[in-house]
Amino acid sequence: MEILKERILRDGVNLGNGILKVDSFINHQVDPTLMLAVGGALAARFAHLHPNKVFTAEISGIAPAFTTALALGVPVLYARKTKPITMHPNAIVQQAPSHTKGRITEIIVSPEFLGPRDRVLIVDDFLATGQTIDALARLVADAGARLVGIGAVIEKTFEGGRAALARWGVPIEALAVITNMDNGKIVFAE
Amino acid sequence: MEILKERILRDGVNLGNGILKVDSFINHQVDPTLMLAVGGALAARFAHLHPNKVFTAEISGIAPAFTTALALGVPVLYARKTKPITMHPNAIVQQAPSHTKGRITEIIVSPEFLGPRDRVLIVDDFLATGQTIDALARLVADAGARLVGIGAVIEKTFEGGRAALARWGVPIEALAVITNMDNGKIVFAE
Repeated sequence: MEILKERILRDGVNLGNGILKVDSFINHQVDPTLMLAVGGALAARFAHLHPNKVFTAEISGIAPAFTTALALGVPVLYARKTKPITMHPNAIVQQAPSHTKGRITEIIVSPEFLGPRDRVLIVDDFLATGQTIDALARLVADAGARLVGIGAVIEKTFEGGRAALARWGVPIEALAVITNMDNGKIVFAE
Repeated sequence: MEILKERILRDGVNLGNGILKVDSFINHQVDPTLMLAVGGALAARFAHLHPNKVFTAEISGIAPAFTTALALGVPVLYARKTKPITMHPNAIVQQAPSHTKGRITEIIVSPEFLGPRDRVLIVDDFLATGQTIDALARLVADAGARLVGIGAVIEKTFEGGRAALARWGVPIEALAVITNMDNGKIVFAE
């Protein structure tokens, strides 16, 4: 997705150690028009698999998952990291690493909104180690739903997430695939 | 906003003690088409004040703030509850109550994205006690930005938030105003 790659090169910052700062347009401040295009592009890659639900984890997955769901005309569901008082008591829980807290947290979903009737597309902002997405896929499996695809806005291939997620046997797509961030560079695939 | 009120009556659940469960379409599972209409309606109420940024708090404010920003053609910024490693070191911090954790948490924003040049519209899913929105307004003030309005998807008048926020001297709008939830009822204003 060219406009996304151009934006990453213009406004993204390589902080070193594989850390990409994109909080001016993706995960703190968000450019809604770009994110609408991101959602349209992800939807186009997965529409043939007929997902009836887009699934993500709070927090920074919400915007791209929302716009993907909007383009597909289906609901979006975000797993919670703390259980709200309004949530169904029989919540489904999995462990996931916390990027910001540097430890393991839980991600939680209500069985009311994920079940055997669902064909689920997982969408997140980053595909890096794949651990958060793997936890989402385990929630999908626990709910008896069918995972049909995994989409990410930005992939960092050097963190190995695509290989870690191969066991799910579904198409994995990312709109901007970064292969190298050494020495301050941001290098895209192809 | 009639379609929102109808949806609340159809799919919302009064759990008692003033707690409204709307997690099938607003704050766990989200109906993107409804949320797009919500954002359009909020944008229409505040466009004359020319906000150049929509501001919310993670998590459940993100979807309505996003669609409001999309309709206004401006960026959306969400305050974080944990500081990501990518955030600017001089983050601006305020205290806010945590609904899910039952204690005080911090909300955090980068000074890169909020400053004296900004005319800020705060949007959240609920206007209840007003404490989260008040913390957002304090972040706006700390950043030297100008608050121009406060919008909510659903207001519960009996929790007093509108009065608590009056000190900010800006228009406050909610799309569905609930005045009474006693005895299992959901009563809208007018």
